[in-house]
Amino acid sequence: MHEKLTLGATIGIVGGGQLGRMLAFAAARLGFRTIILDPDAACCAAQAANAVIVGAYDDVDALKQLAAGSAVVTYEFENVPVGPMRALAGTVPVFPPVNALEIAQDRVVEKAFLNGIGVPTAEWRAIDDTQELDHAMQEFDTDCILKTRRFGYDGKGQASIRRKSPHGELYESLGGVPAILERKVPFDFELSVIAARGQDGTITAYDPAENVHSMGILKSSTVPGRITPETAEAAKAIAATILERLGYVGVIGVEFFVTGEALVVNEIAPRVHNSGHWTEGACLISQFEQHIRAIAGLPLGTTERHFDAVMENLVGSEVNAALALAAEPNVLLHLYGKGEARPGRKMGHLTRIHPRDDGNRVKEG
Amino acid sequence: MHEKLTLGATIGIVGGGQLGRMLAFAAARLGFRTIILDPDAACCAAQAANAVIVGAYDDVDALKQLAAGSAVVTYEFENVPVGPMRALAGTVPVFPPVNALEIAQDRVVEKAFLNGIGVPTAEWRAIDDTQELDHAMQEFDTDCILKTRRFGYDGKGQASIRRKSPHGELYESLGGVPAILERKVPFDFELSVIAARGQDGTITAYDPAENVHSMGILKSSTVPGRITPETAEAAKAIAATILERLGYVGVIGVEFFVTGEALVVNEIAPRVHNSGHWTEGACLISQFEQHIRAIAGLPLGTTERHFDAVMENLVGSEVNAALALAAEPNVLLHLYGKGEARPGRKMGHLTRIHPRDDGNRVKEG
Repeated sequence: MHEKLTLGATIGIVGGGQLGRMLAFAAARLGFRTIILDPDAACCAAQAANAVIVGAYDDVDALKQLAAGSAVVTYEFENVPVGPMRALAGTVPVFPPVNALEIAQDRVVEKAFLNGIGVPTAEWRAIDDTQELDHAMQEFDTDCILKTRRFGYDGKGQASIRRKSPHGELYESLGGVPAILERKVPFDFELSVIAARGQDGTITAYDPAENVHSMGILKSSTVPGRITPETAEAAKAIAATILERLGYVGVIGVEFFVTGEALVVNEIAPRVHNSGHWTEGACLISQFEQHIRAIAGLPLGTTERHFDAVMENLVGSEVNAALALAAEPNVLLHLYGKGEARPGRKMGHLTRIHPRDDGNRVKEG
Repeated sequence: MHEKLTLGATIGIVGGGQLGRMLAFAAARLGFRTIILDPDAACCAAQAANAVIVGAYDDVDALKQLAAGSAVVTYEFENVPVGPMRALAGTVPVFPPVNALEIAQDRVVEKAFLNGIGVPTAEWRAIDDTQELDHAMQEFDTDCILKTRRFGYDGKGQASIRRKSPHGELYESLGGVPAILERKVPFDFELSVIAARGQDGTITAYDPAENVHSMGILKSSTVPGRITPETAEAAKAIAATILERLGYVGVIGVEFFVTGEALVVNEIAPRVHNSGHWTEGACLISQFEQHIRAIAGLPLGTTERHFDAVMENLVGSEVNAALALAAEPNVLLHLYGKGEARPGRKMGHLTRIHPRDDGNRVKEG
């Protein structure tokens, strides 16, 4: 189902966290209205939206209300329940398409899909009990990571296992839920591509960022970092293949491990992505506006990068130093208006811009 | 009264038009909460704010409510009643200071202030009746403009008078209210400076823009346009003098006429200014963030300009073509989410960026 929004149309956003907030701001700048669905009336996206529907993500009445008030519906995180979203998609266009949501929600389905379209991932095995874990660890005979198939984020729901180490209790300690064992990739660094596909099939991608995680949470994204032009092109091409095969509309984040020149996909996120926040400071059109453009049926914007950039997350109490950072030149500060700075909670980010090292400049429009 | 806001503090904004809206977005990005005071609950700034207090700008109860909920109060237009704002300033810090509001509200007081601190303006006479108008027209013996002293904006409340032409009914046609006659300045072009002063006395100014008006409404702002570096520096220096002498805090817009190398000030606006909207696309820190930084007691941001830029207003039905403009590369579109596209109503703007003609680049931070 396609939809070209008219001036002042309303966009429904499932999820009222910082990504929903930044999407709502971008939508407003294009003259669109927004309604947020979130269980918390005081969610941080409320400040940026015309209205908040308070309800669980699988609350059928709340979803109906959202659909009734929206010309198109999108979501800010991949753990939205698939069933209700599929029902919603029968009454209002939902972008990105629900099949992408379904694939990204389950690490086994995700990797099977990626391998099926020829995209390399870490070697993996589906794990449903301790015996399967034993067999797979013997078979791989290397360091591995055990992850729950569903509902993992920011490093939650996963555990490393060293080669030949005891792991008797490990499967149960993750809750005894369906899991996946992945062979640990001895990567040099991690990168991500933020790409988008429009309703007309146009695909664009921002330059990839080199990402550093700490305790499972993204710490920084650096563009271009250590990424060679060849690796950047290869990563963008893989992202484009994924978008094509999903019949995708919207922004996607694709995370990779880089080993030498080799790329394997770690995971895909069918939404705007933390590692794309730097686009706000270094590009005319941010990932948030790009997503709104795509789902609104507008032409995608330029992904031209005008600066080298380093984005740093402000996690937990790091936010307390944020306002002092405003004194640094070339820093764009972005706080999420969240109340309590709990440990591990993403409270904001900053982007430092620098002249492009390669001397590239904006091209005449 | 000074005030350094803490993380998550609330900023009160008097006026819910597009300037209030853009200020609210900038405040949110720095993690602040906002309350808008506007007579219209559906004002376009409501989308960007945490709360709206519906009330007239001189509604004492509404203003008390605003003061009670805000750590600092600012305003988005210069026709806010001075008396209530002065009363408000006794209970909560108000920036820009109310004396700037008072001066900018009355064209006679404004010009007397400017001339008093050595800033040149067009020659002028206060006009309180038809006889005074006759005398002044004879004395000036040139084309002139008659303006109401108060409540003029977007070319409203003014009329041109040609030298030696009949003007018998003209004074009454403007309502018979106190007026000012200004000698018409034979300018080459108009420019404006968007400057800011922080609570610590620091002054910054963006590069001046060349402005074109049509039917009294700003049509475009071009940076650098025909402005020489010398004229730019002179205009910035005058803006700095005005800020100093007012003990100002916040962003100010200073409009000039340029004739050869000579500058005269046309008017000052104690607020963010339409001719500064280009800063959003061409600078890391926009005029809106700069204003929020100033009134929040934060360090002012860099005013470095990374691109040449042309800002165009989308007035009335021009907005209907806006979404198609998204197809142009290097265009940053900004719509205000207003409902009806009435003639003369500012509905949005766009900024086109181009590489700097002088080859200047961002400096290392």
